[in-house]
Amino acid sequence: MKIPEILLFEVEHAPGNLAQVLQLVGNAGLTVENLEAVARTSTHTQWELTIEIDETAQHDLCERIDQLPSARMLGRSDRVFDRHRGGKIRTVSKVQLTSQQVLRDIYTPGVARVCLAIQKDPVKAKEYTNIPNTVAVVTNGTAILGLGDIGAVAGMPVMEGKAALFDAYADLSGVPILIEDKDPQVIIDTVAAIAPSFGAIQLEDISAPTCFEIEKALIEKLNIPVLHDDQHGTAVVALAALITATRQVGRDLKKSRVGQIGLGAAGIGISRLLLEYGVEGVIGTDLNQDAMAQLESLGGQRASLGELMAQADIVISTTGVKGLIKPEMVREGQVILALTNPDPEIEPEVALQSGAAFAADGKSVNNVLGFPGLFRGAIDAGVVKFTDAMLIAASECLAGLTPSGALTPDPLDRSVHDAVANAVREAAEQGL
Amino acid sequence: MKIPEILLFEVEHAPGNLAQVLQLVGNAGLTVENLEAVARTSTHTQWELTIEIDETAQHDLCERIDQLPSARMLGRSDRVFDRHRGGKIRTVSKVQLTSQQVLRDIYTPGVARVCLAIQKDPVKAKEYTNIPNTVAVVTNGTAILGLGDIGAVAGMPVMEGKAALFDAYADLSGVPILIEDKDPQVIIDTVAAIAPSFGAIQLEDISAPTCFEIEKALIEKLNIPVLHDDQHGTAVVALAALITATRQVGRDLKKSRVGQIGLGAAGIGISRLLLEYGVEGVIGTDLNQDAMAQLESLGGQRASLGELMAQADIVISTTGVKGLIKPEMVREGQVILALTNPDPEIEPEVALQSGAAFAADGKSVNNVLGFPGLFRGAIDAGVVKFTDAMLIAASECLAGLTPSGALTPDPLDRSVHDAVANAVREAAEQGL
Repeated sequence: MKIPEILLFEVEHAPGNLAQVLQLVGNAGLTVENLEAVARTSTHTQWELTIEIDETAQHDLCERIDQLPSARMLGRSDRVFDRHRGGKIRTVSKVQLTSQQVLRDIYTPGVARVCLAIQKDPVKAKEYTNIPNTVAVVTNGTAILGLGDIGAVAGMPVMEGKAALFDAYADLSGVPILIEDKDPQVIIDTVAAIAPSFGAIQLEDISAPTCFEIEKALIEKLNIPVLHDDQHGTAVVALAALITATRQVGRDLKKSRVGQIGLGAAGIGISRLLLEYGVEGVIGTDLNQDAMAQLESLGGQRASLGELMAQADIVISTTGVKGLIKPEMVREGQVILALTNPDPEIEPEVALQSGAAFAADGKSVNNVLGFPGLFRGAIDAGVVKFTDAMLIAASECLAGLTPSGALTPDPLDRSVHDAVANAVREAAEQGL
Repeated sequence: MKIPEILLFEVEHAPGNLAQVLQLVGNAGLTVENLEAVARTSTHTQWELTIEIDETAQHDLCERIDQLPSARMLGRSDRVFDRHRGGKIRTVSKVQLTSQQVLRDIYTPGVARVCLAIQKDPVKAKEYTNIPNTVAVVTNGTAILGLGDIGAVAGMPVMEGKAALFDAYADLSGVPILIEDKDPQVIIDTVAAIAPSFGAIQLEDISAPTCFEIEKALIEKLNIPVLHDDQHGTAVVALAALITATRQVGRDLKKSRVGQIGLGAAGIGISRLLLEYGVEGVIGTDLNQDAMAQLESLGGQRASLGELMAQADIVISTTGVKGLIKPEMVREGQVILALTNPDPEIEPEVALQSGAAFAADGKSVNNVLGFPGLFRGAIDAGVVKFTDAMLIAASECLAGLTPSGALTPDPLDRSVHDAVANAVREAAEQGL
């Protein structure tokens, strides 16, 4: 798979020199993701070039850049690693320890009064501890991004990323919990045992079908909201994107036939939410027969890939298989969301050339738009479970906030997350 | 037991009015811990009075204050509760999400590069995640402060307090883990399962004898430092206080006979560390015969309370029993640390009147002086276990930093914690 690479090179000051480098990048079939001048001397400028690249292409490109008379490769930039150095999150004290009295209030002996108050009335823990605002971000590392089973510790940067985004967009305290075990019962027992520490549980990057069993058991066992982000967080953003896309092409989503290619955690989550949203026909395909049976149990229908592409008005793919959808499979007027990152099942421009009315890839469907507001809303409402009404409210809110021409709102806009949280809270409160 | 109470009252502006109130406090046998003017009108001043008080005394005192012609009780202050509102800790992002590029670096797709680097070389998790700086603060709530078995959630304010102090004094991220279960095997299995998330484990306020079994099993199972704070953190500060106290009275600690009254977690921890430090004779007493046997297995000797008081040059008590040591039990020249909070086994002034050469209570032996530097030092050294050499180095460091006339250094002084961390790190590195 392609992952982002940041190349560092310098070029002499002269018109056209930088263009020569970018021409080589273009010739290699690569799109410039970012370009930034990081240093400038009297004769040269150093540039940091961000591209998504695979290993084979890269060595060749670097050599070619180096062979230009006016440019010189300096190596790879450590920017991504620099931004991870020391980790991306930390626990901080909200209290400034400015005096002996503050210490005696927040630690022994003063803290004893608060402990006794909570013992007498456990609801007071919501008022006098950070428990309700703390979300465990739990993984066993079996399905980290598109990288697969790389282990929970190797997945920590993703979990810290979630926690950082919880802070930035929902004022929630994310606590990564890494469990290096594939036995679903171990995950269930462990999370249940530590659950009193948290206000909610986010299950993250746990592979199917284990993820379904774990989520179901924890929802039944615990009296706090539990959400498997890969299923439902992704589904919320995908539904929002579909609402936007069908509006743009003048199609009625609920009356459309939607084909879901790939029935892992994300595919099942999307299919389930579409059916709950009211889409009349959801067909799905997967190599795994159990996954197809699971779709049927939700009210969908199984199909082959060929049947699906022939019948569906809207196609969503979450397979992890680059280029799975061939141009000749695309039907005139189809809406296609090829969500596998970073290499989609079909490039949007290819799908459009093949007759699709609308096409987008996973870059446009960033799941950071979902989970912060979902958890903030559920916690603010004080509910113990996520409901489909809450998920759909989040999708509709996102679709409503999407600027014309875009598929989803800007994830860097804090007000978007606040709006999602409000929509989720209101939906939760109406359900009580 | 007594816990701190903060009374709010107002007095008319006139010489002597405040003194009348304080006279009533003194008559009730209470010492003023803090007094602060919180509001002032043209005719009155509102005062916040902090005392340690028990429920029976309190009602009477409040009525008496209210009956003064120039004073009026306004109620209790919520200061301690105000300082706990919303909890005392939170998780924050270290990264400012200022641009799409930052988001793409710290979340998908950039984060994938860091995940793969850790998968390839797991040691990189120390560099690119916050795992090594994160300490789980684990309790099952069975021995919260002197309050006993009030449950883990009711103990959360203590755990958040530890985490706040980790931040303030050691730049460590404390993560409270609450497990509402008394089965030691559940605690062991649960902590072992989530251990990959952390750089160290602090066991906190777990009752004896379960705490010994849990600590031993986790030290054997895990490759990160595990410390039961109530045993070893307390022991470190108690040993520091004893080094200081014996210096002040010109006694040789190692050649002294030390009597430990109460062989719970703290008492066993102190006895063990004193024996490791080189104290020749440690005798101990407890109502529980198993605890006495445990002391013997460490190299100490069992005794009755009477025998202990008759034989010991130095007496330490950690029984939770107010007034256990009667004045007539005190021998001329004894050093007495009566550590039960907030009501010691014998008040220091009573012990001194009865012939003790030195006496102090638990207020002077604050365990916040121990754990931040202990964990910082162990983590900085990269060791997988705490050793006695590390604990003793911390005690000697604290004793060395104690100003003349004091028993321990000022816990609010960050440089003290840094010095302890350095001493612990050096001792750890020498042991490698």
